Amino acid sequence: MADVSEKPATRRVALASGLIRIGQKAFELLEKGELPKGDPLALAEIAGVMAAKQTPKLIPLCHPISLSRASVHCELRPEAHAVEVYCVAEITERTGVEMEALTGLQVALLTIWDLVKPVNPELEISDTRLLFKSGGKRGDWQHPDFEKAALPSEVAERLK
Amino acid sequence: MADVSEKPATRRVALASGLIRIGQKAFELLEKGELPKGDPLALAEIAGVMAAKQTPKLIPLCHPISLSRASVHCELRPEAHAVEVYCVAEITERTGVEMEALTGLQVALLTIWDLVKPVNPELEISDTRLLFKSGGKRGDWQHPDFEKAALPSEVAERLK
Amino acid sequence: MADVSEKPATRRVALASGLIRIGQKAFELLEKGELPKGDPLALAEIAGVMAAKQTPKLIPLCHPISLSRASVHCELRPEAHAVEVYCVAEITERTGVEMEALTGLQVALLTIWDLVKPVNPELEISDTRLLFKSGGKRGDWQHPDFEKAALPSEVAERLK
Amino acid sequence: MADVSEKPATRRVALASGLIRIGQKAFELLEKGELPKGDPLALAEIAGVMAAKQTPKLIPLCHPISLSRASVHCELRPEAHAVEVYCVAEITERTGVEMEALTGLQVALLTIWDLVKPVNPELEISDTRLLFKSGGKRGDWQHPDFEKAALPSEVAERLK
Amino acid sequence: MADVSEKPATRRVALASGLIRIGQKAFELLEKGELPKGDPLALAEIAGVMAAKQTPKLIPLCHPISLSRASVHCELRPEAHAVEVYCVAEITERTGVEMEALTGLQVALLTIWDLVKPVNPELEISDTRLLFKSGGKRGDWQHPDFEKAALPSEVAERLK
Amino acid sequence: MADVSEKPATRRVALASGLIRIGQKAFELLEKGELPKGDPLALAEIAGVMAAKQTPKLIPLCHPISLSRASVHCELRPEAHAVEVYCVAEITERTGVEMEALTGLQVALLTIWDLVKPVNPELEISDTRLLFKSGGKRGDWQHPDFEKAALPSEVAERLK
Repeated sequence: MADVSEKPATRRVALASGLIRIGQKAFELLEKGELPKGDPLALAEIAGVMAAKQTPKLIPLCHPISLSRASVHCELRPEAHAVEVYCVAEITERTGVEMEALTGLQVALLTIWDLVKPVNPELEISDTRLLFKSGGKRGDWQHPDFEKAALPSEVAERLK
Repeated sequence: MADVSEKPATRRVALASGLIRIGQKAFELLEKGELPKGDPLALAEIAGVMAAKQTPKLIPLCHPISLSRASVHCELRPEAHAVEVYCVAEITERTGVEMEALTGLQVALLTIWDLVKPVNPELEISDTRLLFKSGGKRGDWQHPDFEKAALPSEVAERLK
Repeated sequence: MADVSEKPATRRVALASGLIRIGQKAFELLEKGELPKGDPLALAEIAGVMAAKQTPKLIPLCHPISLSRASVHCELRPEAHAVEVYCVAEITERTGVEMEALTGLQVALLTIWDLVKPVNPELEISDTRLLFKSGGKRGDWQHPDFEKAALPSEVAERLK
Repeated sequence: MADVSEKPATRRVALASGLIRIGQKAFELLEKGELPKGDPLALAEIAGVMAAKQTPKLIPLCHPISLSRASVHCELRPEAHAVEVYCVAEITERTGVEMEALTGLQVALLTIWDLVKPVNPELEISDTRLLFKSGGKRGDWQHPDFEKAALPSEVAERLK
Repeated sequence: MADVSEKPATRRVALASGLIRIGQKAFELLEKGELPKGDPLALAEIAGVMAAKQTPKLIPLCHPISLSRASVHCELRPEAHAVEVYCVAEITERTGVEMEALTGLQVALLTIWDLVKPVNPELEISDTRLLFKSGGKRGDWQHPDFEKAALPSEVAERLK
Repeated sequence: MADVSEKPATRRVALASGLIRIGQKAFELLEKGELPKGDPLALAEIAGVMAAKQTPKLIPLCHPISLSRASVHCELRPEAHAVEVYCVAEITERTGVEMEALTGLQVALLTIWDLVKPVNPELEISDTRLLFKSGGKRGDWQHPDFEKAALPSEVAERLK
């Protein structure tokens, strides 16, 4: 763990996104709400928020912090038979929250996996990226694909 | 959580793999052991093993189980400026360990991310898949790409 | 912690129930799905299942166990402007699961509290009881009010 | 989780109370210090303090916070063969601590349950309420029954 | 983590002990029950039992297991102005419980430290040893000093 | 837990050290990198950092805090066939971090134990002491042996 005690406490936001491809059959069951173990999206959104709070326990060198907001949003991507998941983490402290956003995201994606796997074990998680972060001494940063990313309005609002 | 009390306790193994692309500059620093926060691979292997044990706390419907083995292996992929990570989970119980292998894998990948991000914030995790699982009432299962996957010998041995 | 290593591993089920009174205004908003922080019942059912798995960490003398099933069910009680919550825990081991059912129940009730409190801080949790347990050397046990309890069919099924 | 980064950090206190009825026989054993698994009150006071610190892990939308004080106090209520439990939580931060006080309280009550149940499985937890909270933008709040509540002096002192 | 799935599940017991020297002044306050933060021994016994259950989360390569018993016993050693702490862990599984006994022991010792340090910061923990373990393929094992150790009768009984 | 809400938030550092004696045979294997379960020192350094973050969950009356730095350093002591372990914890808050430094230290020592015990079960942890703490209303404090302690330069630097 790096020493952060001299850094100023500023408001910092991070947005991470990733995709889980579940195949045509599972995607149709998901759309109809007929997956046998229940609705993966509602469960994923909660599991992701709870996991973001556990980040310092999972990632060895992450500082224990007091997240001021975490939220997860799932968006169906029918053309890819996929779900795109977004996680926003926010804080007013001395360290960034990229790892919190990424941890919330990955656990949300794994929760979808857990509920879809009885129907299809051949799943794939990909495109996990940090899209945006603000705050810190270097100011805002955007992934080169940030402009192209069709952010759902619920997610875009949280970045303001 | 599904009721598993009637299922037989059999030996079950699961192998998950995934890739993190870190870019040319960070990859060269990694190869030379010059990343500023230390060696990400040793740290990732430990963080992944510890996270696999936390799976039931992170994934809402996963059963609490007594993993009999978890191991993480990192393999450099110079052509892609990437690290490929493998996680094997093993148990003798009534439920499978796919989610344990996947959780260990994702936390190992995120740990690499955490140590590489001071050098390059534009990272990407992809190709997270379940490659193999054995045990359970349906017997062994292989991902269609399992035969093509060039498994490191340390990983292949653990599947026997 | 008592020594349980000599006890036989048998199938054991426990059912706990409790009530949270939220008042007329909040109850109407709950029925209409208009509570400002979201749907408390879906969240309570997940939080309760996850908490049941954490029981040995919270209750000092509880043994660490491998729950084979936990489920939470919420039932509206309009006449009392209340929600009645049921938690069923199930295991095949050497110790009972009363504390797991009760812990899942209480955390589910507290989760409802957390989502209702912006509308009404004057809430009350009451009637937390163990209604039923099976297994163990003394066999089945029923609370005197078990017969009178109008168990939802989803809950009654899980006791078989 | 709601965004709290704009709220001012003020000193906030919350008091929750609840009752566990244990029946005449168990109550007499408790008074004589003859319950077979040990003294439930000392254990409950510690378990409650430790659980208050775990609140953000148990209640999905609770913010991770740095509690500056938590304390649990148990009071015998012979007329009801009951134990009344009080939990006070205190913080200087941007969010309230009602859920911390309530979580500490419920785990303290469950710990008493765990130690009394070998003698009497027919227990009941009731009257779980928030009695008082101070701080925050709305200032102090009292439950309508707060004035009537015969607070033990140890508890009353902590509210100042 | 080593693979333990082929090992037989046998009854295993481990006993660890250690000493904390607290100095004359603090020892006298402890004997009189006048330490300002409360009684460290009762608190240490509970904290040690709870920590023994957390062993697999703390020690990276420890297997997650279902402890069937853990207990901590504190014994005053006036001649050394010290407290000697014993922790017994017991299980019927495929792996030993030395690390569980040692983890429970060390957290019990640290809990005493935490309550004594306002009076004396110059404390010392020493003599942490594994005194005895039974079960496993190699059978019983005793530390060379086991015979000389004046085990309190409460501890000696638990080894049978 | 004592009330700390009125204390000022100042920068505080704590250093704890301790020794594990592993015997000649295990020490030689450790020096040659031939211990069967892997390198205990690298693992101990990570396990200690992660455990320091868990301190408030393990030590009942410790406040939940946001550590700004934790680090563990292992030093071979060939003359004693021992490893000396140092843990530095640092924070800018209202409470000290002695217990964080000590908890990180003890878990690091136990992790070494876990990896050495297949070769030698007759290990001993001793000399666990707080060597230094700074910050807080009483200012800096040094153990009487602090001047004599031959601190490795990596550790000495962190105290500045």
